Amino acid sequence: MAKDKQKKPRRPRAETPRGFRDYFGAEVRARDAMLAQICEVYHAWGFDPLETSAVETVEALGKFLPDVDRPNEGVFAWRDEDEQWLALRYDLTAPLARVYAQHRQSLPAPYRRYAVGPVWRDEKPGPGRFRQFYQCDADTVGAASVAADAEMCAMLGEALEAAGIARGDYAVRINNRKVLNGVMEVVGLLDPADPEAQAGRRGIVMRAIDKIDRLGEAGVRALLGAGRRDESGDFTAGAGLEAEGAETILAFMAARADDGAATCARLRELVGGSAAGREGVEELETMAGLLAARGASAVIDPAVVRGLGYYTGPVVEAELTFEVVDEDGRPRQFGSVAGGGRYDDLVRRFTGEAVPATGISIGVDRLLAALGEKGRLTAEGPGPVVVTVMDRGEMAGYQQMAAELRAAGLRAEVFLGGGNMARQLKYADQRRAAVAVIEGGDERARGVVQLKDLALGARLAAEIATHEAWKAQPAQVEVPRGGLVAAVRAMLARAD
Amino acid sequence: MAKDKQKKPRRPRAETPRGFRDYFGAEVRARDAMLAQICEVYHAWGFDPLETSAVETVEALGKFLPDVDRPNEGVFAWRDEDEQWLALRYDLTAPLARVYAQHRQSLPAPYRRYAVGPVWRDEKPGPGRFRQFYQCDADTVGAASVAADAEMCAMLGEALEAAGIARGDYAVRINNRKVLNGVMEVVGLLDPADPEAQAGRRGIVMRAIDKIDRLGEAGVRALLGAGRRDESGDFTAGAGLEAEGAETILAFMAARADDGAATCARLRELVGGSAAGREGVEELETMAGLLAARGASAVIDPAVVRGLGYYTGPVVEAELTFEVVDEDGRPRQFGSVAGGGRYDDLVRRFTGEAVPATGISIGVDRLLAALGEKGRLTAEGPGPVVVTVMDRGEMAGYQQMAAELRAAGLRAEVFLGGGNMARQLKYADQRRAAVAVIEGGDERARGVVQLKDLALGARLAAEIATHEAWKAQPAQVEVPRGGLVAAVRAMLARAD
Repeated sequence: MAKDKQKKPRRPRAETPRGFRDYFGAEVRARDAMLAQICEVYHAWGFDPLETSAVETVEALGKFLPDVDRPNEGVFAWRDEDEQWLALRYDLTAPLARVYAQHRQSLPAPYRRYAVGPVWRDEKPGPGRFRQFYQCDADTVGAASVAADAEMCAMLGEALEAAGIARGDYAVRINNRKVLNGVMEVVGLLDPADPEAQAGRRGIVMRAIDKIDRLGEAGVRALLGAGRRDESGDFTAGAGLEAEGAETILAFMAARADDGAATCARLRELVGGSAAGREGVEELETMAGLLAARGASAVIDPAVVRGLGYYTGPVVEAELTFEVVDEDGRPRQFGSVAGGGRYDDLVRRFTGEAVPATGISIGVDRLLAALGEKGRLTAEGPGPVVVTVMDRGEMAGYQQMAAELRAAGLRAEVFLGGGNMARQLKYADQRRAAVAVIEGGDERARGVVQLKDLALGARLAAEIATHEAWKAQPAQVEVPRGGLVAAVRAMLARAD
Repeated sequence: MAKDKQKKPRRPRAETPRGFRDYFGAEVRARDAMLAQICEVYHAWGFDPLETSAVETVEALGKFLPDVDRPNEGVFAWRDEDEQWLALRYDLTAPLARVYAQHRQSLPAPYRRYAVGPVWRDEKPGPGRFRQFYQCDADTVGAASVAADAEMCAMLGEALEAAGIARGDYAVRINNRKVLNGVMEVVGLLDPADPEAQAGRRGIVMRAIDKIDRLGEAGVRALLGAGRRDESGDFTAGAGLEAEGAETILAFMAARADDGAATCARLRELVGGSAAGREGVEELETMAGLLAARGASAVIDPAVVRGLGYYTGPVVEAELTFEVVDEDGRPRQFGSVAGGGRYDDLVRRFTGEAVPATGISIGVDRLLAALGEKGRLTAEGPGPVVVTVMDRGEMAGYQQMAAELRAAGLRAEVFLGGGNMARQLKYADQRRAAVAVIEGGDERARGVVQLKDLALGARLAAEIATHEAWKAQPAQVEVPRGGLVAAVRAMLARAD
């Protein structure tokens, strides 16, 4: 082992760490434009930005990810010189809870905030699955009313539309943790008088519900009952429900009917005499009503899970309903791009007092991918106008041209590398420049410049190396030096 | 010790880690607006955005901060499950070198890129000194020409002006590492035939130059010679120069004359027969000439240091020249807000081939502070219009009002907390709302709403608790429900 360490390569490898990536040019601008559109919606709804530090104490972050059971799992952490454990935030919600607890005396109540930024998870990377990714959240802390949850759903729809997802291309589905709690009471897994008891069995039920897509009804039924042995022979202990109890849970998951009223009627039957369950159904009805009054539709769907263990009331998920072609060439629905819900216990960790909170989180990279699929990303304009350099001694003059173009609002640069005209025009093509400016001694003497229309001329660029040959091309025009800006502008307009 | 650890508090502390901070509301928007202005300048000059991951391998980052000598100092690092050391980037330049080495086949050459984002340093925090802070960089990789360095200086000035610093309020000072190398040759500390020899003594000289502000001329002279004992009795070894050599270094540092030509004449004398030194002086002259041709002025100042050990050619520093009042009430110049230079060796670490590169970095937090001092931050408008809630059963109607206001381009929200009208108006004041909308049953029956001008009425808010009393205030008007948007707009216009 020690031997291996000694064979250190002389040069470092130029690589991102496994599971990390870089974003270039148009990708960065498209994402920034999309995030700006979404944040303007959040801002218009009265939300204020908050940017917390990327680093938190492990103590403040808490020992769990929302959808992971094991403590300290999945977080990048290290020990400070003060012997304090620090970690990169794994979402934007845990830092919000810390901020609210820290600054609650000075923050307005309710506190509406939005946040955008990277989060980090020390998880196995995979295709399209990175260890650093962006979230774009909005949360309201200190509003207990279900009207706050409804506002989140309506705003989420508006944010998706602002980003470029048409109204018919997404669906907002809502559910409520309290309804599941009511069903848990009915099947004997939750005693309102002793809510901590049987938490383990309830956890098994929630994880089973979460696995319906992968295991199917039979697999979930096994996990609700005695347990399940998978193909590899591994046995997962079940929740130990009798057949009737398991059927009740399965009926809850399948309770979505043709309309919200019918779904709620079914749920009301399932929660029977549970007060929490009835409250959950009522909250669903109120939310659906408030959303319908705004012309924003939400489907009540008990199959929406979203880490129900983490949430305490309404949960919401937004999915894109159009089809994309997956890696194997099969059409499939694009699926979830955002979600959230009510989590009334997060601030209590710090203060001991319950503080109601509800929020949404948009998966930025997935939404960007979806917009890319639909061809709705903010298009990047052409590259900069490239002022080529025939005479290195005349650099000030070339800089002057670029400065004039920029002063007129155009993007422009002087070529600063080495190489002949062919090399420079190849560079301009690589930059997706629409226009190149050429001025040699002859032009300078006559007070003119050559403008090369690269959109027309790109195909020939590799073949012609001399200045004279270029002049013969139809895609090139000679204009007076004084008319540079106007002529470039006209050429760019033609390229549009 | 183990005993201490056991007395773990039951609740986590709601605190940022030492040296980290949060940014709220207007701070975030002011910074984003400033960065957008700067980045639009970079973009207009043909630079493309690049966003690298926050996490790099320690191997790729390199073992040094630009201005720290000790290896691995000042970086937050941890070991991955693959036993690989990872770290948070400490600047935006080291990741650029890694990206260029990794993607050089597909990137244009020269590659102009800009980058904005946080960087992290595990250093002792202090007042105004944080362990996470923003940088806003532009770099050109693959351009050896001094025209690229001149471009950086001119663009830096334009970026500062775009951010709101008036032309007379900043100065761009330039220097060149090669001139110092020439002086090193003259004093016998650098042999062009064996450039690695005496690196340690040259390091002492550079650190001594860097300390002129703190130690004064006598202290630097001691460090250039036999060494220096400070007040605490600690001895710092000197570079061991004879008196004549030390005077040459001091003359170099003080070589700035009334104009660039005179400064260059002095420098040319100081570098004597050194080819590198003469080249450095010529580069300074060329840069100054290119900048003067653009109407952008730069002062040649050999006292500009900026970690000369890191840079290989031109270096630049931008400082704000207006006075601010420091913590002790004394006026002082605001000082440096940006800097950069040419670093031709950074990509070579990866590829073995020298790749010329030059860049600038703006200290975002310092520049923001400066704009704040000058009152030139993008002003945040008033807070959102707050639609108060008299009747919780009429939430859909209140939501409708807020939606109408937003559809008209105004920022608006429904109050979603608990409390009477006084509480709600206090909240609206805390949000800096200019207008509150009030609709009770009486108004609803008559088809009107009350608009409260909070700019006028704020002083009374704490005293009056009933809806009726509010109506009597002059700052309140009754308008038809159908005229809500127009009336709010008129009231906001009045508040401007």
